[in-house]
Amino acid sequence: MSAPTAILQVICPDRPALVSELSGWVAANGGNIRHADHHTDLGAGLFLSRIEWALDGFGLPREAIAPAVAALAERLGGEGQVHFSDELPRVAIFVSKQDHCLVDLLWRTRAGELPMTVPLVVSNHPDLCAVAEGFGATYVHLPMSVGSKEEAEQAQLQLLADHQIELVVLAKYMQVLSPSFLARFRGEGMQGHQVINIHHSFLPAFKGAQPYHRAWERGVKLIGATAHYVTEELDGGPIIEQATVHVSHRDDVDDLIRKGRDCERLALARALRLHLCRQVMVYRGRTAVFD
Amino acid sequence: MSAPTAILQVICPDRPALVSELSGWVAANGGNIRHADHHTDLGAGLFLSRIEWALDGFGLPREAIAPAVAALAERLGGEGQVHFSDELPRVAIFVSKQDHCLVDLLWRTRAGELPMTVPLVVSNHPDLCAVAEGFGATYVHLPMSVGSKEEAEQAQLQLLADHQIELVVLAKYMQVLSPSFLARFRGEGMQGHQVINIHHSFLPAFKGAQPYHRAWERGVKLIGATAHYVTEELDGGPIIEQATVHVSHRDDVDDLIRKGRDCERLALARALRLHLCRQVMVYRGRTAVFD
Amino acid sequence: MSAPTAILQVICPDRPALVSELSGWVAANGGNIRHADHHTDLGAGLFLSRIEWALDGFGLPREAIAPAVAALAERLGGEGQVHFSDELPRVAIFVSKQDHCLVDLLWRTRAGELPMTVPLVVSNHPDLCAVAEGFGATYVHLPMSVGSKEEAEQAQLQLLADHQIELVVLAKYMQVLSPSFLARFRGEGMQGHQVINIHHSFLPAFKGAQPYHRAWERGVKLIGATAHYVTEELDGGPIIEQATVHVSHRDDVDDLIRKGRDCERLALARALRLHLCRQVMVYRGRTAVFD
Amino acid sequence: MSAPTAILQVICPDRPALVSELSGWVAANGGNIRHADHHTDLGAGLFLSRIEWALDGFGLPREAIAPAVAALAERLGGEGQVHFSDELPRVAIFVSKQDHCLVDLLWRTRAGELPMTVPLVVSNHPDLCAVAEGFGATYVHLPMSVGSKEEAEQAQLQLLADHQIELVVLAKYMQVLSPSFLARFRGEGMQGHQVINIHHSFLPAFKGAQPYHRAWERGVKLIGATAHYVTEELDGGPIIEQATVHVSHRDDVDDLIRKGRDCERLALARALRLHLCRQVMVYRGRTAVFD
Repeated sequence: MSAPTAILQVICPDRPALVSELSGWVAANGGNIRHADHHTDLGAGLFLSRIEWALDGFGLPREAIAPAVAALAERLGGEGQVHFSDELPRVAIFVSKQDHCLVDLLWRTRAGELPMTVPLVVSNHPDLCAVAEGFGATYVHLPMSVGSKEEAEQAQLQLLADHQIELVVLAKYMQVLSPSFLARFRGEGMQGHQVINIHHSFLPAFKGAQPYHRAWERGVKLIGATAHYVTEELDGGPIIEQATVHVSHRDDVDDLIRKGRDCERLALARALRLHLCRQVMVYRGRTAVFD
Repeated sequence: MSAPTAILQVICPDRPALVSELSGWVAANGGNIRHADHHTDLGAGLFLSRIEWALDGFGLPREAIAPAVAALAERLGGEGQVHFSDELPRVAIFVSKQDHCLVDLLWRTRAGELPMTVPLVVSNHPDLCAVAEGFGATYVHLPMSVGSKEEAEQAQLQLLADHQIELVVLAKYMQVLSPSFLARFRGEGMQGHQVINIHHSFLPAFKGAQPYHRAWERGVKLIGATAHYVTEELDGGPIIEQATVHVSHRDDVDDLIRKGRDCERLALARALRLHLCRQVMVYRGRTAVFD
Repeated sequence: MSAPTAILQVICPDRPALVSELSGWVAANGGNIRHADHHTDLGAGLFLSRIEWALDGFGLPREAIAPAVAALAERLGGEGQVHFSDELPRVAIFVSKQDHCLVDLLWRTRAGELPMTVPLVVSNHPDLCAVAEGFGATYVHLPMSVGSKEEAEQAQLQLLADHQIELVVLAKYMQVLSPSFLARFRGEGMQGHQVINIHHSFLPAFKGAQPYHRAWERGVKLIGATAHYVTEELDGGPIIEQATVHVSHRDDVDDLIRKGRDCERLALARALRLHLCRQVMVYRGRTAVFD
Repeated sequence: MSAPTAILQVICPDRPALVSELSGWVAANGGNIRHADHHTDLGAGLFLSRIEWALDGFGLPREAIAPAVAALAERLGGEGQVHFSDELPRVAIFVSKQDHCLVDLLWRTRAGELPMTVPLVVSNHPDLCAVAEGFGATYVHLPMSVGSKEEAEQAQLQLLADHQIELVVLAKYMQVLSPSFLARFRGEGMQGHQVINIHHSFLPAFKGAQPYHRAWERGVKLIGATAHYVTEELDGGPIIEQATVHVSHRDDVDDLIRKGRDCERLALARALRLHLCRQVMVYRGRTAVFD
């Protein structure tokens, strides 16, 4: 819809002249900056930068930009990456039996709200096949019987490779991915693949199983949802987005589940859009979100 | 400002005809109901009712209402109490060094937002004396040196008795009240005195000390505050009200503290107003809030 | 899922003993009340009541309840109606080209969040046929060419009658219904059929056309959506639910439209659920919402 | 508390290399950038930039920075200004009889939340004298009898000049400032003085008088408040911040006024902090808020 842009993300040790150096490089190559956001974490001594500029009229050919950014980041003693707004990431959605997040993500993708393609939906249940296929995705049912997890994850990794997937979204998947799966899929550094999960509580409250039941037991007046990157630590990865909604004594557990679905959908969709628009940068177990 | 009302609260085992019996009793005595709210907790098998009616034209003299309500509740196998909207509870506010909640509560009381009087402010520090006295409250400074807690609590209980206090509000008091203090102040059943606390996190996340520091460490995107009745379990009492506000990577711990103050003030003020208007009923570690 | 209930709604002039009389009638017939809410509008001198009780064990056969309620309401000088929670209203959804509200409502209906059936979707465009049919609804395309409005509305009324529709939802229909259509569909009094619309602004701001464009022009920091009953006055009917979301200078009109879609969906779905659960009562151009 | 910074704001026609040029200038003088935000309004063809850097170690003496910024902005064909975080603006608060915003602003100033000093409070009523003086401000009572407005405004302008006021906050002042007053106080361009008002509705709904009464009449489910710069057009100036809160049928006009006070306080305090931290830029009747 809009003219394609390049988006640069750099993390490096803080020192003077970094904004000048990065924006100077863009300017030297004739780029007109659309958005530029920077953040200095004084405690960590780190500088984070996201710069987006129009590709139209830019002096470097597209294939030369990533190497140039890598060299630039290396000179600054940090890490960098570049993405192009018109190159849509290939995303796999992992689901269980609940369809609300899946329908929402597929609808938003079709409507143009989420710049991605979804070639693959993976589930340990057969239930959501028709939904996925109705939106043009391949649906693969991999049952998770006792003892088969390693085997199933091996099959998942193969599917992700076959479909050239760079992002996995756990849309109420209800299974824990093994450290080995994560290590093999994610790879190293900023260039690595990512996994985003939606957890049905305002983390760190109610980590783990049955958060709505435990929220009801505790008698909270707010429930929530948290979208976060998945790491080895259960429900402990960097948080991208959180949402809450009020509940009352009239709401039983089923009402919490129903109201929570809206939180889950919104938090996940917002987090995913931020990630896809390359507005999220991860460092030291946390995120900077340039919105 | 408005004509005085009586407010009845009853908790009893659920069975048919309870609304009819309670409202029939009000009607039989000529009372015109302004508000009537009921809640059935099917799991617990309990019925909760709050009925408010105009005292003007009511057939029973004021002093006869409480005994009649007690008899009615007993007949239903439950507990009941009655309050009158023009009898303002005497409230003590416990503070430490932070003044934002204290100023807010005293201002709201003066402005007529909180139907109570505040004859007494107690602190383990001398700092807020001028604030309290500026609003006409007696300020008592009781230092909490090591080993003196039992003694200080004894003095507090005496002060509460002397000032005929029925509700204590911990407005950033930063001290834990001992079980013995609670047992002696609160007494038994629905008629007992209460203690309300404001905790600076969305419980059950970040129970205990330093919640803003821990929230920053975790990288949450929401911070919050929780107003709750105090029980023997630290930060575990029945929740009345919770509020949250968004934070970003640009906010350091000081910003979280600053933004959190607004959450704390609002959650505490709303909870207190609900309590004072007798819109809160406590049962089984939770609250029903008829708003 | 849950046991069926009867839901009584009564509006009548305020006087003492109304709660007692209504709940006494339920009790006299052996009904166990699940929820009872009442509201007195002192300025208007009106009393509104909603009482919901379990049908299981109730003394009157279902077909005798409505006449008994009518007699009761007449005795109180007011109006009354009764609904049964297991009798799902037949709803028609009117759409134009945008699908977000339609998909959301159909998904929620299938998921059990909205107690209704949707036999009919009507549109002045052919675009959303596949969506409607995918959820099992009949899709009727009635073009709105110049001069044909009266004819089209005549056809719509016939369709509504044929499908025994009692509620029309305008889910981004983008057309104004004529007063004559409304008069013929809605009928008289509390028993009448209703039309619910979602307007894409926080009314009364930005009534009429192009609200997002006008919101952008004005530079507001919040946009919103309003679900309301439709009356002869454009965007002037009783409001059921409103939602807002923050926007910033970075959001252009397309972003407002995108963010607004989430507000629209949520406000419409919440309003519709409240209506279907018979939690909304309309009087004097406004609503009482017993949630 | 934190080390002093300089804050640059520039608006100029958009073209490539602007970020580079501005940040290059900071770097060339040895400044370490703490925050840098830029916005391009493509429709307007304008570029807006806010850059904040540590003064410690900066090569230019403080008095040389403003002229250098002016020269830089002129070279870009735009306008620029610079502020220093440790130079607190002198602010006058105009009030009528309601004290909630005044108390809130004075408390926040004392608590360090609002980087300003308040030497002067002006009112057309004597009521709030003690509040203002309690926080160390001079209180001037200027009655607004019929026919005296011009004279009173003349006296106000003299007071503002005498106290070297650069910002006027209308904290529920309930009077309209004349165009002549505004023209004389505000001056020209980005360097001019400003007036910020809090209006008790979510503008553009309920412009003008009695917004809560009109909101109640309309039966809205949300009320709000809007903080905006004051221009000649009543309630039509650039919006800085808006807040809303839910209301229900149980709320009468007095409840709306009470609930609205919290919205008013929060929206005004947030807007004022944004302004004082130089995070707001005004252009073409709207604001860019870099938060």
